[in-house]
Amino acid sequence: MTQIEAARSGNLTEEIKLVAEQERRSPEFIAEGLKRGTIVIPVNLLRRGRYAVGIGEGLATKVNANLGTSPDSVNLDRELAKLKVAIEAGAHTVMDLSTGGDLAAIRKAILEASSVPVGTVPIYEAAVRVARSRRSIVEMKEDELFEVIEDHLKSGVDFVTVHCGVTRSVLRQLKECGRLTDVVSRGGSFVLEWIYYNEKENPLYERYDDLLDLAKTYDATLSLGDGLRPGSIADATDLVQIGEMVVIGELVARARKAGVQVMVEGPGHVPLNEVESNVILEKKVCKGAPFYVLGPLVTDIAAGYDHVAGAIGGAVAAAAGADFLCYVTPSEHLRLPDVDDVREGVIATRIAAHVGDIVKGIPGASEWDHSMSEARKALDWDRMLRLAIDPERATKLRKSSMPKDSEICTMCGEYCAMKKVKGVLGEER
Amino acid sequence: MTQIEAARSGNLTEEIKLVAEQERRSPEFIAEGLKRGTIVIPVNLLRRGRYAVGIGEGLATKVNANLGTSPDSVNLDRELAKLKVAIEAGAHTVMDLSTGGDLAAIRKAILEASSVPVGTVPIYEAAVRVARSRRSIVEMKEDELFEVIEDHLKSGVDFVTVHCGVTRSVLRQLKECGRLTDVVSRGGSFVLEWIYYNEKENPLYERYDDLLDLAKTYDATLSLGDGLRPGSIADATDLVQIGEMVVIGELVARARKAGVQVMVEGPGHVPLNEVESNVILEKKVCKGAPFYVLGPLVTDIAAGYDHVAGAIGGAVAAAAGADFLCYVTPSEHLRLPDVDDVREGVIATRIAAHVGDIVKGIPGASEWDHSMSEARKALDWDRMLRLAIDPERATKLRKSSMPKDSEICTMCGEYCAMKKVKGVLGEER
Repeated sequence: MTQIEAARSGNLTEEIKLVAEQERRSPEFIAEGLKRGTIVIPVNLLRRGRYAVGIGEGLATKVNANLGTSPDSVNLDRELAKLKVAIEAGAHTVMDLSTGGDLAAIRKAILEASSVPVGTVPIYEAAVRVARSRRSIVEMKEDELFEVIEDHLKSGVDFVTVHCGVTRSVLRQLKECGRLTDVVSRGGSFVLEWIYYNEKENPLYERYDDLLDLAKTYDATLSLGDGLRPGSIADATDLVQIGEMVVIGELVARARKAGVQVMVEGPGHVPLNEVESNVILEKKVCKGAPFYVLGPLVTDIAAGYDHVAGAIGGAVAAAAGADFLCYVTPSEHLRLPDVDDVREGVIATRIAAHVGDIVKGIPGASEWDHSMSEARKALDWDRMLRLAIDPERATKLRKSSMPKDSEICTMCGEYCAMKKVKGVLGEER
Repeated sequence: MTQIEAARSGNLTEEIKLVAEQERRSPEFIAEGLKRGTIVIPVNLLRRGRYAVGIGEGLATKVNANLGTSPDSVNLDRELAKLKVAIEAGAHTVMDLSTGGDLAAIRKAILEASSVPVGTVPIYEAAVRVARSRRSIVEMKEDELFEVIEDHLKSGVDFVTVHCGVTRSVLRQLKECGRLTDVVSRGGSFVLEWIYYNEKENPLYERYDDLLDLAKTYDATLSLGDGLRPGSIADATDLVQIGEMVVIGELVARARKAGVQVMVEGPGHVPLNEVESNVILEKKVCKGAPFYVLGPLVTDIAAGYDHVAGAIGGAVAAAAGADFLCYVTPSEHLRLPDVDDVREGVIATRIAAHVGDIVKGIPGASEWDHSMSEARKALDWDRMLRLAIDPERATKLRKSSMPKDSEICTMCGEYCAMKKVKGVLGEER
């Protein structure tokens, strides 16, 4: 029985119970969200019992870390090291976006090693298969694409990004309206090229019912990719982006009708003052489907520090209701991330998610801050370091510069305000 | 003639002209801001001709980097290295917050080496002098405090933080209302202790006119410090913080009447959904005085990554109208920052400032993003790296992982969407 079927029939799956426990909500709350489509629990039927992560309204904002090789950079051990670091740093899910090396073997290794849900973008592998048979992507047969999707689901993938909203009509809008950076989504560009040269509709849209059948068979979650997401703040919230979202809104309704879990992917590059509107729009047009944003990046110029630009956008998006943040690493726009990038990206994105959770009033969120501030007032360093978002990093920084008086730190030394004011106010209380 | 006097009499100083040029505004726009008190140009009369930085309404958001020793960590060479890195990374001003070693000599060395305005917090040195004469801060004579302030201004300091708003009435409010983290400002805690034990009013408030005279003599800018800023998100925007701001609002009006340049310091720890309100409040209560915020930090738990928490708060604050962001480094709450921390803190804060400037519509802000995105579309890597916020870091990351095809990067390799889509749309346009 799929999670939605279980929820609809009043059966509480193990996953529903586990998510309820993690989120400090009742199982009925989670089941209700599954029924309404405002919550998804991405776990392939073949992977039941390994993990349970809830994404959606009323739940803590989740963080995804992208892994995977590229044609120029293939190293399975490094990808497994990245997986380990991502999970240690607190990523709630990972995606294997490999396009270099033995893709099936890499996916299998990541699925075996992962203790969190795994997502993929099957069209990447479809494109690679076609390229390796010395054909152009535009020569890809529709069945080849669906075969790869089935291969992925059969191997246990929990959620797949599918660019169903890139339709002929959206391509026309793109051509007519123009953009500064056109298309920056790899999957989006494959579909677009295919549509353009074949003069046919996107098979992921045309044969969406087949896709729904496949997803339902494995209880996989569809993540409706935004192939036309803005790649520059100048293109944000334009007719093309919103045109695609309107198509996606229709597809969300059809997935729900079919009993398939679905979430919606979002931008991309968005100026800070448009982030909230983007979230509101998705929540309305897609009737509360969980919103999975990539960043958003609130400036185009932060290469080398895009995790910071992504944390700014992600925090504001989460506070406005985004449910799921895809991390951005310091290497975005420059190279395939390395292990350190992954750690940095996950932590920065977790900060953004937590900042949003405080605003959302998620159970336990501001309590964490409260405990930290209590520890600060008590000058309790063990507790402060334990409560830091990355205890290892915090401990390392503290240990690198120890004060003479172990109650304080080397920033203010003996002039520590916390310590001094205790004398004035402490005796009064 | 002070900058305000010049503006009032219709004389355009060199500084007014330089600021106008940098900001792509007319000199009259800058002069008008000086007259109204919505813009300051912090440069000591003794330092005229060295630099000109405008802070305030209609100007690009500026970034300050804190430097300085602490009793546990004294090394002048390191502080000078931090100054160099801060300026290279793009800090618009620095503050010397030293409390360890030969304070006058450190200040002198920083003033000599700095090519940007320098601020200080004179009460730190007053406290250190008292401590070194084996007395408690509460035994500090009022004249000793004013002597230090004059010493600082005489040595050329451009702006000084003075905690004039920490009054007996605010102390009473603090005692009555209670807080999670009481007082986290060093200067605030000195003043508070002094008031409490001496049962007298804060001399910086009581003798504010003397302070105004001193500031005017050197055309130094007063930065009205928020000694009661919240040190935890739980304390944000509380009666105590706002009580102090009300006092500061009165003092802003008096400074303007006296022809003294003045700005207002702000929080501190503030949950994301209260950041905008804090800016609006300051702009109203302090009648448009430039707002200089520390962060704000939108969570208490990010020790080790507080530059990220600060960038989130700073971006939202700048977008809402904050004029000047004090950087926060990864070492905040843990230790005195090192040279790498300074660089990381300045860049993260510059990203926040730029993100705010895009929203504010500052001339040149979104044009930068536009140029970067044009370079991306053109696959022009030299231009992309040159336009990155930190070209050195971006170049290093790119060079560490070069693709076979020099047009693309190792993230997507040959599947680069930018490159592929050129084929589809490029020929059409």
